[in-house]
Amino acid sequence: MQEVIGELVSSNTTKMVLCVLDGLGGLPLGGKTELEAASTPNLDEIARGSATGLHIPVAPGITPGSGAAHLALFGYDPLKYGIGRGVLEALGLGVEVTRNDIAVRGNFATVEYKDDKPILADRRAGRISTEENRRITTKIREAVSEIDGVGVSIHSGVEHRFALVLTFPEPLRTGSDEVSDTDPQVVESGPLQPTPRTEAAEPVARIIEQFITMATEAIRDEEKANYLLLRGISRLPDLLSWRELYGVSAGAVAAYPMYRGIAKLVGMDVLEVDGTTIESEIETLEKHIGGYDFIYLHVKKTDSYGEDGDFEGKVGVIEEFDGYVQRILQLKPDVLVVTGDHSTPSVMKSHSWHPVPFLLKSRLTLGGKSSGFSERECLNGELGVFRAVDAMTLMLAHAGRLQKFGA
Amino acid sequence: MQEVIGELVSSNTTKMVLCVLDGLGGLPLGGKTELEAASTPNLDEIARGSATGLHIPVAPGITPGSGAAHLALFGYDPLKYGIGRGVLEALGLGVEVTRNDIAVRGNFATVEYKDDKPILADRRAGRISTEENRRITTKIREAVSEIDGVGVSIHSGVEHRFALVLTFPEPLRTGSDEVSDTDPQVVESGPLQPTPRTEAAEPVARIIEQFITMATEAIRDEEKANYLLLRGISRLPDLLSWRELYGVSAGAVAAYPMYRGIAKLVGMDVLEVDGTTIESEIETLEKHIGGYDFIYLHVKKTDSYGEDGDFEGKVGVIEEFDGYVQRILQLKPDVLVVTGDHSTPSVMKSHSWHPVPFLLKSRLTLGGKSSGFSERECLNGELGVFRAVDAMTLMLAHAGRLQKFGA
Repeated sequence: MQEVIGELVSSNTTKMVLCVLDGLGGLPLGGKTELEAASTPNLDEIARGSATGLHIPVAPGITPGSGAAHLALFGYDPLKYGIGRGVLEALGLGVEVTRNDIAVRGNFATVEYKDDKPILADRRAGRISTEENRRITTKIREAVSEIDGVGVSIHSGVEHRFALVLTFPEPLRTGSDEVSDTDPQVVESGPLQPTPRTEAAEPVARIIEQFITMATEAIRDEEKANYLLLRGISRLPDLLSWRELYGVSAGAVAAYPMYRGIAKLVGMDVLEVDGTTIESEIETLEKHIGGYDFIYLHVKKTDSYGEDGDFEGKVGVIEEFDGYVQRILQLKPDVLVVTGDHSTPSVMKSHSWHPVPFLLKSRLTLGGKSSGFSERECLNGELGVFRAVDAMTLMLAHAGRLQKFGA
Repeated sequence: MQEVIGELVSSNTTKMVLCVLDGLGGLPLGGKTELEAASTPNLDEIARGSATGLHIPVAPGITPGSGAAHLALFGYDPLKYGIGRGVLEALGLGVEVTRNDIAVRGNFATVEYKDDKPILADRRAGRISTEENRRITTKIREAVSEIDGVGVSIHSGVEHRFALVLTFPEPLRTGSDEVSDTDPQVVESGPLQPTPRTEAAEPVARIIEQFITMATEAIRDEEKANYLLLRGISRLPDLLSWRELYGVSAGAVAAYPMYRGIAKLVGMDVLEVDGTTIESEIETLEKHIGGYDFIYLHVKKTDSYGEDGDFEGKVGVIEEFDGYVQRILQLKPDVLVVTGDHSTPSVMKSHSWHPVPFLLKSRLTLGGKSSGFSERECLNGELGVFRAVDAMTLMLAHAGRLQKFGA
């Protein structure tokens, strides 16, 4: 599909705004979903005159992670273009990942040495505190900063988690990240060797092996975090950038590192946001919309409250966003989409597979099918239930940026 | 997609029940479809609180046979995994087919010999009676029971039809069933030679050739059925079993041989049913649900009446099933689906391509979109119009048996 779109893209001066309320979709508690329970006069008003529908992030019944869900909304089929877990972890910690980098998820672990061989006692090092983690990563950072010309950087995560980034002198080839995990997934067993599955991955596996030797030597005397396990060894996926794909300049307004990372991955400019509030994001949007064809704006807390099982908290964030809708409309975007990346029903306290409400405002819609903005009202809409990967094509079309297919 | 699902499957103790009312979907007669005309207070009540939608068995406009339609509902794309016509014929006659078998559809035919060469006069042997058919297959059975170590069994069908099963000493390789039909599809022409299209099919073609010589010799003196034509030479498709695919133990409650055969094909345990009534099937369900994660229950007569053009008869079977719905609910399945494998509108007296009503009851649905269970009400539902091959993913998701895709 991307090949087809690529051939049809034409230039225009229209502006598009995509607002992603993370985990927007929900399920009923006492009859109403979070979006139904929220008082959203502005979104309801827009929905009445807009194209509405629901999108399926990956496939029916499949619950997506945030990376996969965002890739889909941005027009990259996540079943085709996977982002490796290591890359996602690094992005999540706000670490930049380039084409020269291998990114890895790490866990500190506890081992006991038997005949000088490490045997796992705890795969999470007793979930050491984040402060402990910082102290130990500093120790490793001082011991290893480079191996055979490859830069080594280690970044603390929460509790026992960290991200490792290996920076090679040259961009990495396809297949060079095909190295197996060292985490055996069980205790009372030795850690596994990082094993290359392709020829291109052999140099990467060798560097990782040396890193493990040097880093575990540096922390061998620690009481709990005296070892480390590596998983999700990965490089940036081979994606065409938005500029190449859609011919649009795009800016990302996202307060949280992971979403900034994914936006960068697809070639958006990541804009500075002063703080993490919706208000500060709206200010950034207002400041930069003149300079871009497309702005992606991400609201995180709908998902956070959903994950916490805080129905009212999620309702509150939706209502807060609704309060800024008039300011977005004043910017007169030619196409405005409000949706989520996936559903996070408070009653499930987790992401889910449920289709996500989607609203597209433009002068080129039917409208008149939904009486407000909600899961159930969007089901009546002109877009039906569609795959998220089609959302960008719909936005471009409504923005007058796609030519006719065929004569 | 099966590869993705396979990686996401996680274990759980939830129970799923899939009720397939064969040929459920219909078309209006005097304004109402069979499902709309039927009084179904229990199904209507469930539909109001459930996820509803319609599934497309194979592709829009494509009318499926029962084998293809069931494969799709069970999660195997019938455009990718074909079941050969010979296998379907054998399953339809209640004949077991194993990995060592080649199954073939046969017709008795009438030939006239010219210069000792057979020339077809009637491709269906004047549609001899089923009794005649039994007498003639017995004659063949006595003449040929084995060829070069390959077991030969022939099974009478209706009128001029029969199934032939060739049992080889070893499981058959992919491609070994690539042997052409011997039916030229026209009369006044000689029957065709069974020709192998792959190297693996050569031994199979040789055995079939010998079978034709021996069998036609045995019936040469018959007045009408003095020859036979073979079509749909096929082996079992290479399918992953449900246990491998979905990690569930599954039992099939189906009174009719063909559905028992398809269930067996995907690795379900086929449970004993005492008779062919819905009541006896419900009793089997009640007896076995404790021992399985998943039960498939098949109701045949909706389709049979549809094929007969008996609108009221089909309405009656739907109403009869509705009367057992409370007994199913008392078993407290975590996920209950009621649907059909395809549509069989009485006004068409045949299978059709029309999307099939689908109802999914679980605590994790929106609900509130359908006022009852019917084709038109399901169109308002949260599942929209979806492909049958996604039905299993939806059931597994609602049963809490799929992990998140991506971080």
